[in-house]
Amino acid sequence: MSKNKTLLLPRWLLSMKPGEGVLEGQALLIEGERIAAVGAREALLAAHADAARVDLPEHVLMPGLINSHTHSAMSLLRGVADDLGLMDWLNHHIWPLEKRWVSHAWTRLGSLFSAAEALRGGVTTLNDMYFFPEAMAEAALQAGIRCAVSINVIDFPTGYASGPDDYIAKGLEAYQKFKGEKLLQFTSSPHAPYTVSDETFVKLRDMAEQHDMQIHCHIHETADEVDGGLKQFGVRPMERLDRLGLLNERMIAVHMVHLNDAEIELCAQRGVHIAHNASSNLKLASGIARIADLDRAGVNVALGTDGAASNNRQDMFEEIRQAALLAKGSTGQPTVLNARRALEMATLGGAKALGRAHDLGSLEVGKLADVIAVDLSAPECRPVYHPDAQLVYVAAREHVSDVWVQGERVLQERRLTRFELGAVIAQVEDTVAQMKAGQGA
Amino acid sequence: MSKNKTLLLPRWLLSMKPGEGVLEGQALLIEGERIAAVGAREALLAAHADAARVDLPEHVLMPGLINSHTHSAMSLLRGVADDLGLMDWLNHHIWPLEKRWVSHAWTRLGSLFSAAEALRGGVTTLNDMYFFPEAMAEAALQAGIRCAVSINVIDFPTGYASGPDDYIAKGLEAYQKFKGEKLLQFTSSPHAPYTVSDETFVKLRDMAEQHDMQIHCHIHETADEVDGGLKQFGVRPMERLDRLGLLNERMIAVHMVHLNDAEIELCAQRGVHIAHNASSNLKLASGIARIADLDRAGVNVALGTDGAASNNRQDMFEEIRQAALLAKGSTGQPTVLNARRALEMATLGGAKALGRAHDLGSLEVGKLADVIAVDLSAPECRPVYHPDAQLVYVAAREHVSDVWVQGERVLQERRLTRFELGAVIAQVEDTVAQMKAGQGA
Repeated sequence: MSKNKTLLLPRWLLSMKPGEGVLEGQALLIEGERIAAVGAREALLAAHADAARVDLPEHVLMPGLINSHTHSAMSLLRGVADDLGLMDWLNHHIWPLEKRWVSHAWTRLGSLFSAAEALRGGVTTLNDMYFFPEAMAEAALQAGIRCAVSINVIDFPTGYASGPDDYIAKGLEAYQKFKGEKLLQFTSSPHAPYTVSDETFVKLRDMAEQHDMQIHCHIHETADEVDGGLKQFGVRPMERLDRLGLLNERMIAVHMVHLNDAEIELCAQRGVHIAHNASSNLKLASGIARIADLDRAGVNVALGTDGAASNNRQDMFEEIRQAALLAKGSTGQPTVLNARRALEMATLGGAKALGRAHDLGSLEVGKLADVIAVDLSAPECRPVYHPDAQLVYVAAREHVSDVWVQGERVLQERRLTRFELGAVIAQVEDTVAQMKAGQGA
Repeated sequence: MSKNKTLLLPRWLLSMKPGEGVLEGQALLIEGERIAAVGAREALLAAHADAARVDLPEHVLMPGLINSHTHSAMSLLRGVADDLGLMDWLNHHIWPLEKRWVSHAWTRLGSLFSAAEALRGGVTTLNDMYFFPEAMAEAALQAGIRCAVSINVIDFPTGYASGPDDYIAKGLEAYQKFKGEKLLQFTSSPHAPYTVSDETFVKLRDMAEQHDMQIHCHIHETADEVDGGLKQFGVRPMERLDRLGLLNERMIAVHMVHLNDAEIELCAQRGVHIAHNASSNLKLASGIARIADLDRAGVNVALGTDGAASNNRQDMFEEIRQAALLAKGSTGQPTVLNARRALEMATLGGAKALGRAHDLGSLEVGKLADVIAVDLSAPECRPVYHPDAQLVYVAAREHVSDVWVQGERVLQERRLTRFELGAVIAQVEDTVAQMKAGQGA
């Protein structure tokens, strides 16, 4: 038996290749880090008798989910303050807690904890935004999850750095350190138009160009942000960013709740990617993004959870379902964002946003083997009429049985293979107990 | 050890008594069908040494959830047709399938299957609406779930009955047959203003008065329904129903998506209860109900899933979370429908709607022992800052470990105690295979 070859034998295969539906009687061969074959089960069984086999008798095999926006370390703040508005929540709860507690060790622990939650929920790639990028990088490598690590910059000092140049210098140091790691990529990450100056935006634009990075930025999250930007700069943030040369195919624009028709058209023209965080936008009452309109205009939309402090469930199945439901309910058009389209946003859409569509987002020969199996045998997942719609409207993260990242089986029958989750949780509880004893949490 | 006494020893107790928060160090005594004591753990342990004990070391104990609107039997149609508008979905998919397949046996099977899903998800009471009420009644009694069974009436003939008088006669027969069952109550259930005549509405109003039933009716679900009613009757459906004497404290008005300010005020004046089905309203693109406004006006709001054909997850945890998120996102007010209020809607709100607030909806001495335990020890439920918010924004139905209905433990460490679920699922698969082979599904 070849150690490097594994043949996956699912009931259903959903490759997410454009135009291809749910297939039965298929198998998928992983060889090393990549998908080496997808095809008829009998033929692949005959041709690869030396491969290890994984029977997935009531499972859908599909590309791993891509969480296109989160703040992984904030799992340590899950539920610390709910039912509040964005600026109240940031100014009076999150930022003071972060100022007091965030460190390399804190970030590493929260990121590892989030990586476990992600993998157990079928997420194979995180697009993360936080401080201490080397802590996120270490956590991702330990967990065996793919991650776009941010060089995150904000114009005011934090416990991490003293100002924009310090954030950038520290971020580039982490980038140089981890540059060879296949599971990692780095993003140039201005926090948001209301926390980053023109000068810093330009530096981060240039850094992205120089190192071929995507740009990861919160934009137009709230009406207040847009109004405030208009007052301060004389134009809405989108126009300001466009003038600064930030709107192009590198840009992963997070939230984008408040867009007018011209801005949607501008996104389409510039090739801007949207990271839509439906649950977070609802919970912070930021509003409802015009995803159906963006999709119709040809803008690439990806889905994200946002951090655990504003969306306490780091659950991409929830976000897929929420995106599909919300697009219908908010437009009055029940046919928009059908199940297939919502799944695309969480797979290929995410891959495109990260500039990785050649490698990720669908089950195709030659792509990296980021693959998940979703078990539809649970009572609440029966009967199955349409497996793709079942994934969106019925199945949930607890039905993910197995996860491969870059060919490695990192979740096996719901058990993480890389590390002992119990020990991580014990550390999380210790840290949170200290925070509760210490201040405010 | 007394067979009739069970002492539950949870980490947290959330009684849902108005004004009472989450308590620690408490115990709850079930004696027979009712809650006999709630109080300090040590005192209850000493006073009831003869009681059976159930340790719930990382669990929240709370009232069973009340699903205030569903069509249980439609679990057999889960996912049969998605991404469609209400009338297309009804006319071209659901109604033809129902016409062809629905029978007593079909309804009983689907209802039993749904009862299993409900109990496994922490639901102890279903407010059901469907045909063949005796089939729902039988299924509920078998499963050990509490159910409000509908005498459902529609003005056109179906496989169940030939017309309004036939629906009513058959429904009353079922009512007489099951009248003594403590787990059951019956509702007078006109389907909707667009399918029921004035004459039938009046009959169902009088039947409700005569037999002290609540009324269970879809109202103002879509803008088309309201417009159509206005055209046909010269007034909006709410006004028509008010003139017919249907709007009072017996009325559980389902959906109520399209309400103007005067109609919200009318609901408050008349004591109408709302059954809010957030996910279904989104999925069918009916719109977003004004729940925050209804709540502010003092209208009692309960939560429901709707049937599995329009909300494929019969998951009240999802509806609690969705209601809380959607109220914030659609109003721009992040403080409305906080976690506590959303939980109230799914417990006390449901009890009030069913006219059962004296017996159900909170953990209080003398009330029926409809109790659930939610285990917050899963990795994705950690850390715990605020157990009540954790139930809304993090926990999910799979974290429900144990369920008592009327004092009987019907779910024990996630295993149904009353019946073999595997056998039910096998029957579901057989039935669905026949439907797929037969027609359209």
